[in-house]
Amino acid sequence: METVTQLTNELVASYARVGGINHLDGKNLPSNHAITAITQDLLRLLFPGFFDDKPIHSSEIKVITAELLDSVLGALEDEIYKALEYNPPPELPKKNLRSAAHGLTVEFLDSLPRLREVLQTDMVAAYDGDPAAKSKEEVLVSYPFVEAIAVQRLAHELYLKNVALIPRIMTEWAHSRTGMDLHPGAQIGSHFFVDHCTGTVVGETAIIGDHVKLYHGVTLGAKSTSAVEQLRGKKRHPTIEDRVTIYPGATILGGDTVIGAGSTIGGNVFLMESVAPNSIVIYDAPRMRVLNKSDRKKKAADFQI
Amino acid sequence: METVTQLTNELVASYARVGGINHLDGKNLPSNHAITAITQDLLRLLFPGFFDDKPIHSSEIKVITAELLDSVLGALEDEIYKALEYNPPPELPKKNLRSAAHGLTVEFLDSLPRLREVLQTDMVAAYDGDPAAKSKEEVLVSYPFVEAIAVQRLAHELYLKNVALIPRIMTEWAHSRTGMDLHPGAQIGSHFFVDHCTGTVVGETAIIGDHVKLYHGVTLGAKSTSAVEQLRGKKRHPTIEDRVTIYPGATILGGDTVIGAGSTIGGNVFLMESVAPNSIVIYDAPRMRVLNKSDRKKKAADFQI
Amino acid sequence: METVTQLTNELVASYARVGGINHLDGKNLPSNHAITAITQDLLRLLFPGFFDDKPIHSSEIKVITAELLDSVLGALEDEIYKALEYNPPPELPKKNLRSAAHGLTVEFLDSLPRLREVLQTDMVAAYDGDPAAKSKEEVLVSYPFVEAIAVQRLAHELYLKNVALIPRIMTEWAHSRTGMDLHPGAQIGSHFFVDHCTGTVVGETAIIGDHVKLYHGVTLGAKSTSAVEQLRGKKRHPTIEDRVTIYPGATILGGDTVIGAGSTIGGNVFLMESVAPNSIVIYDAPRMRVLNKSDRKKKAADFQI
Repeated sequence: METVTQLTNELVASYARVGGINHLDGKNLPSNHAITAITQDLLRLLFPGFFDDKPIHSSEIKVITAELLDSVLGALEDEIYKALEYNPPPELPKKNLRSAAHGLTVEFLDSLPRLREVLQTDMVAAYDGDPAAKSKEEVLVSYPFVEAIAVQRLAHELYLKNVALIPRIMTEWAHSRTGMDLHPGAQIGSHFFVDHCTGTVVGETAIIGDHVKLYHGVTLGAKSTSAVEQLRGKKRHPTIEDRVTIYPGATILGGDTVIGAGSTIGGNVFLMESVAPNSIVIYDAPRMRVLNKSDRKKKAADFQI
Repeated sequence: METVTQLTNELVASYARVGGINHLDGKNLPSNHAITAITQDLLRLLFPGFFDDKPIHSSEIKVITAELLDSVLGALEDEIYKALEYNPPPELPKKNLRSAAHGLTVEFLDSLPRLREVLQTDMVAAYDGDPAAKSKEEVLVSYPFVEAIAVQRLAHELYLKNVALIPRIMTEWAHSRTGMDLHPGAQIGSHFFVDHCTGTVVGETAIIGDHVKLYHGVTLGAKSTSAVEQLRGKKRHPTIEDRVTIYPGATILGGDTVIGAGSTIGGNVFLMESVAPNSIVIYDAPRMRVLNKSDRKKKAADFQI
Repeated sequence: METVTQLTNELVASYARVGGINHLDGKNLPSNHAITAITQDLLRLLFPGFFDDKPIHSSEIKVITAELLDSVLGALEDEIYKALEYNPPPELPKKNLRSAAHGLTVEFLDSLPRLREVLQTDMVAAYDGDPAAKSKEEVLVSYPFVEAIAVQRLAHELYLKNVALIPRIMTEWAHSRTGMDLHPGAQIGSHFFVDHCTGTVVGETAIIGDHVKLYHGVTLGAKSTSAVEQLRGKKRHPTIEDRVTIYPGATILGGDTVIGAGSTIGGNVFLMESVAPNSIVIYDAPRMRVLNKSDRKKKAADFQI
């Protein structure tokens, strides 16, 4: 136990010395665990019968929904209260934070029917856009896209209400499960679909029109810069107009970059400027060399097959 | 509670109004949770002693295996029954679904010894193909590839038996954990290895020969098209012949695309046509520009370092 | 039950027949489950108050830390003992493994204050490097990078002590959750940041300087070769000098490849040779073709929009 005492003393000394990564006596931050549980309950409310262990009958749906809403309302209000306390809206007197948290939570839950309507268009886009989908049920039961887009649309509502920390915790939970990083700030139109999802990143200020289809590994990102402070809050990510398809691995950067409606961006393209509507952006054929291994020269030998 | 009642009424009204994303009074779909648990038990059956908390001794292996098989048989039969009820095979009289589910489950479990033999070749390929692997035990204990390929080979057996939904739920569970999306329909030869896994996608109708090595971020995909309905069930994904290596980020698309035996595809290559056996496909060197920052012109300044 | 008996017999026979994937009567390997739990406790020790369900007050920090350290010390010592037993250091007499395990565990825990100091620089780099970060708390509470780099730095300590299996199990746990595969062997300088993380791979012998910023989908990999056995333990992965930025999807391969200090590597670049300090590596503009869909020729029609 003497060893433990010594290790403890050193570590606790480091807590006092190295600031900024521990959170002691600070404000009570929203709990990652609680928000994960709330997010899962919200998915059950959005897709009743799909995220539950057993099917739900019409006769019981009202009771089950009321119970779940009641529980989510209480839990989410607590977390939103912590978020307001951590980062109070300037216009709000401190003593009103609890009632503000209640109001925001009710408004948020009130948006669920509207979110269901948009998500319905996403499900249609997924089934219509993927020849591997055998049925709409298969999409709902197994596609990671469903969880990712539902969580982003939920988080976006809280983002619009300037609730701190919670929206990003929600989308990072989905990111961890699906490999797709949809920032809660992104504005995403109807009939959206991302096939496979892994590695796709959509930045905070991206604007995406209706009927847009992405594949895995697509980046809608910002140009990096050393003037990070000046960029916070500015539009840094591209605008994708309606009916655009972007193939796997394409990277599109910049807040002024607009991909015109009806365009197609080929796989692995790296694009930092706008293209007109109905464009097709692909690589030139000559950029690729096909060699026969028996003829191989130094360059080919690099692969050391 | 009045608030909750109102929120409930609105949400339940939306369940009635917005069809297609809720599943009420419908057929009892296979349970995501149950299939996840079954898949983990199947991994324990395939790799005894590796996915268990404590080592297993020869003297107890028979009892442990029998207990686990008995439990998996019951649980999987229940899920397969739901899948048959959801999507009954046309040739099967409805009253026989339960016995059909039993028969399919037994047949499936009977394939485990054969799957173990193929998986053994994958483990050899992983150890032989990765200089970072310190031992075969390290591969088994820590490589995400092991879980991903084992689950795909399990799911592929159910896919071949036309069991709905379950195969994809199984592979999407592995996809979530490993970042690699191997469709249950893909036909994969022996001695397969994917290093790192994240972002690799292998489509439903891909055919992969023996001794094929992929890296992360490799796509074996379909050409997108507006005629999705006509494509369902058609061969849409490439054929990769024996002894092919495909580097990170390469994208190969199309059902007619054949990568000839012994070929190597370079990183980030985007390929939509066949190449002959023993080809090396790389980018031309001149496509890349190396600039010195002190000389930089407008283009380079885009990066705003 | 007769069916189960038969299935059991066949499967147990396969355990005897197909060697190399089961682990019966073998040495007691470190437990994946135990190491996952230990890793989570180590994260709580590194970032007190952030990975706990409720905030921690200064008055209780010493007691909580001592309890957690005591528990981790015992649990980790058990796993390290198994790792030593599995792969005993040549210089160590077998009877001393238990005390060696104790010594290694104490040394390892003694490094936590030092790791906290380096991790502090990573948090600064993350906040300073990402305009989407609203606060340092947001970084700590939600960014997958925090977990990934903390686990890699922990695992690297054990890697340096030649502890088998455990370091890789730790980083693969983080890989599964964050999509980023940082090998425990990689040497990573201070002020490191990876935005988004998914799909980024850093190989065992990579060396990374200070103030390096990567994006998702970046590979610091090895050139593949058929002479795998000769490569084990050799430097196979690139060296990235100070103040380098590497954009999404770039792939840099080879143990002799050095990216000079202050350089920027553009997105999707595939690079197998060194570049001088202060280089910018991008693609030539002409490699890309922008077509209007109304003019499209055969090539464009491949996309079948």
